[in-house]
Amino acid sequence: MKPLLVIQTDFSLSWSAVAQMKGVMKIVDPQLEIIDLCHDIKKFDPWEASLSLQAAEPYWPKGTIFVSVVDPGVGTPRKACAAKLNDGSIVITPDNGTLTHLLHSVGILEVREIDEALHRYRGGTDNSVFHGRDLFGYCAAKLASAQITYEEVGPAYPISEIVICEEYDLKPTVSNGRLEGFVMTGEKHFGGISLNIRNEQLEEAGLVLNDPVFVEIMHQGKTAYRGTMRYVKSFGYVAVGEPLLYKGSSGYAAIDLNQGNFIGTFGIGTGKEWTVTVTKGENNEESAGTAK
Amino acid sequence: MKPLLVIQTDFSLSWSAVAQMKGVMKIVDPQLEIIDLCHDIKKFDPWEASLSLQAAEPYWPKGTIFVSVVDPGVGTPRKACAAKLNDGSIVITPDNGTLTHLLHSVGILEVREIDEALHRYRGGTDNSVFHGRDLFGYCAAKLASAQITYEEVGPAYPISEIVICEEYDLKPTVSNGRLEGFVMTGEKHFGGISLNIRNEQLEEAGLVLNDPVFVEIMHQGKTAYRGTMRYVKSFGYVAVGEPLLYKGSSGYAAIDLNQGNFIGTFGIGTGKEWTVTVTKGENNEESAGTAK
Amino acid sequence: MKPLLVIQTDFSLSWSAVAQMKGVMKIVDPQLEIIDLCHDIKKFDPWEASLSLQAAEPYWPKGTIFVSVVDPGVGTPRKACAAKLNDGSIVITPDNGTLTHLLHSVGILEVREIDEALHRYRGGTDNSVFHGRDLFGYCAAKLASAQITYEEVGPAYPISEIVICEEYDLKPTVSNGRLEGFVMTGEKHFGGISLNIRNEQLEEAGLVLNDPVFVEIMHQGKTAYRGTMRYVKSFGYVAVGEPLLYKGSSGYAAIDLNQGNFIGTFGIGTGKEWTVTVTKGENNEESAGTAK
Repeated sequence: MKPLLVIQTDFSLSWSAVAQMKGVMKIVDPQLEIIDLCHDIKKFDPWEASLSLQAAEPYWPKGTIFVSVVDPGVGTPRKACAAKLNDGSIVITPDNGTLTHLLHSVGILEVREIDEALHRYRGGTDNSVFHGRDLFGYCAAKLASAQITYEEVGPAYPISEIVICEEYDLKPTVSNGRLEGFVMTGEKHFGGISLNIRNEQLEEAGLVLNDPVFVEIMHQGKTAYRGTMRYVKSFGYVAVGEPLLYKGSSGYAAIDLNQGNFIGTFGIGTGKEWTVTVTKGENNEESAGTAK
Repeated sequence: MKPLLVIQTDFSLSWSAVAQMKGVMKIVDPQLEIIDLCHDIKKFDPWEASLSLQAAEPYWPKGTIFVSVVDPGVGTPRKACAAKLNDGSIVITPDNGTLTHLLHSVGILEVREIDEALHRYRGGTDNSVFHGRDLFGYCAAKLASAQITYEEVGPAYPISEIVICEEYDLKPTVSNGRLEGFVMTGEKHFGGISLNIRNEQLEEAGLVLNDPVFVEIMHQGKTAYRGTMRYVKSFGYVAVGEPLLYKGSSGYAAIDLNQGNFIGTFGIGTGKEWTVTVTKGENNEESAGTAK
Repeated sequence: MKPLLVIQTDFSLSWSAVAQMKGVMKIVDPQLEIIDLCHDIKKFDPWEASLSLQAAEPYWPKGTIFVSVVDPGVGTPRKACAAKLNDGSIVITPDNGTLTHLLHSVGILEVREIDEALHRYRGGTDNSVFHGRDLFGYCAAKLASAQITYEEVGPAYPISEIVICEEYDLKPTVSNGRLEGFVMTGEKHFGGISLNIRNEQLEEAGLVLNDPVFVEIMHQGKTAYRGTMRYVKSFGYVAVGEPLLYKGSSGYAAIDLNQGNFIGTFGIGTGKEWTVTVTKGENNEESAGTAK
């Protein structure tokens, strides 16, 4: 079987852009199977694209070809690349930070710059604003259908030159009964936040299921949220509307309200400016956090 | 051919959760075909999940395997089950009310509890909050690819133990020229409401196409809407912006505005607290209902 | 291989309507491959449906069967039709203006009215409000699976009878250093507008990359926007937040803000009432346009 093509973008599904990418892939080879990863990546944000790839990549067959197009620099001289991962899957993407997390999790074996002179789709309209359709998708389809080899994508360049998001270097602090990190990302639909703290680090800090923890979220010197919650297995172990700390499904510690929306309720944002402290035990201080 | 996998959730498509389910299915068997039913089921609401399945199930090939994950109790001891329908299709779902309508329409031949010890995906991160990916989807894929039989899903239990939504027992009242029911569900995009009154009950009450009817919607003792409209074949038989009563495409009587949005315009909610009376004939009382 | 089925609607993906269309197609023939074009076409608006088809159709294999259901007249005597394009692809749609742009771009070889007596799905509920599922999708699937020929769809009628959107006749004015047109459509996600001015007409008017241009958008006698921007290759050639004029990916001149949202920022609408003038060179008049 041919490799699956799995695509993510920040295009949304509200117009036909994603479908135009798929159509060009089908022109290359009608037998290719194309599946959507997500098209609501935060606009223009390679950090979110990188986190989404890291979360999803392990749950696809090895050898899958991922196409990620979050590309604020489309049409400028930023590199278009194809990265071969250590597990055999491939990611086709602008080299703009989107590879940050995969580089440090599954790891990257080799990276090549796409030769635009060879791999640009010539069948469409003259424009420089839609490389998702005209370059990334087209090149990925040629690769998936074995019309070109990975080596024929273009010249290799040093893995050390891959663009990395600077937030990645901010590591959490883990000590006995205390963890410090930041709000790595949020998920607006259910309203949970993920911290830059791995699930297993909760245990490294001595937390045990059902422990109460005191959580404080600060933003620019102000308290955005503070309160006591329990570290539990899943939502249903606290009352509806109550906060919880839990092991997130992507490998990172997460906080939400059971059947509520933590982000929306407390107006929590994401990024390194939103610092989080988790301390084991109750706290006698009054809870805070203004419901928005 | 292998059975189709058709999935619905309340996850939305705004993050990669649905795609992670699909990826695991493709790891099980790359030849499986997976199609989306809907991922905007009202969050945490098995009643809506049940209605959506009832509406769509008849329009798929017999033998299809449906996966429904609206699961506020994820990670708690609620049952995960696989129900074999009388027409040969199968529904994999938490047993939390999601099977209510199918049980009473196509009917359920047999129901089995999924053996989590045998059918949980072990390739991913340790967590208890994503059974859609780690249990329901994985088990459904093994079944669709014939790696397990339906019997191997887990032990059967009595159909009488299936969890039923209590609203289901509220039946409409149908008499000559008058129907009483409630707003069973709404469809926010086009703005129509569906009543718990079957299309054919409109005729049982003596309504004939083009009849005027007086419709009154009450909520907690207050009038949410009242007015005269016509019972017509389709939208284009009333002027743009005018209300109409019509046979809905899922088998239930429906009300909307032609090229308008009945729900949005009048602030109509759904559920048994929103009672509806449809009376044949004009009504001399003044219309009411405050446009929101 | 069988032709692809590519569908667009104004149904949204927030309920199971699109999936019900797909299910009926799969009942006709489980081997058919069905791909979404877009389901967020502006509700009840054949002009937008027509533009979306024109934008996407060239990027699919010749022979594809497109199904477009933007159908405010569902259930009324408007024609349901199947148009064979000059490139061999087919469009199944209500004949309500949806074919306007394809008729004038790729061109239509033949058009036939779907015989509803022969090609209506009889397996579902009695209703007249869902021809997407019960007529268009079903007929398209029979055609794609070769259960019927194109001729068997129904009787041919003159191409000159195809319903055309009247806005199509409003042509832009192109002279040296000046173009006049209107806002043909907008894309709400990224916020760009497309003018009824073709990319190549920018050059016909003497514009050269990096030229400054003065843009004025008028609505009902009032200035909605005016300001100087540059005509550039892509977004990244102006600062973040700055406006730009560029060759759009669908072949039409476009205006947006780099990493911003032109429509949202200035409250720009679409249609012939929103006239646009593009003049080469700086303008000494003060810029205007009230950020909304």
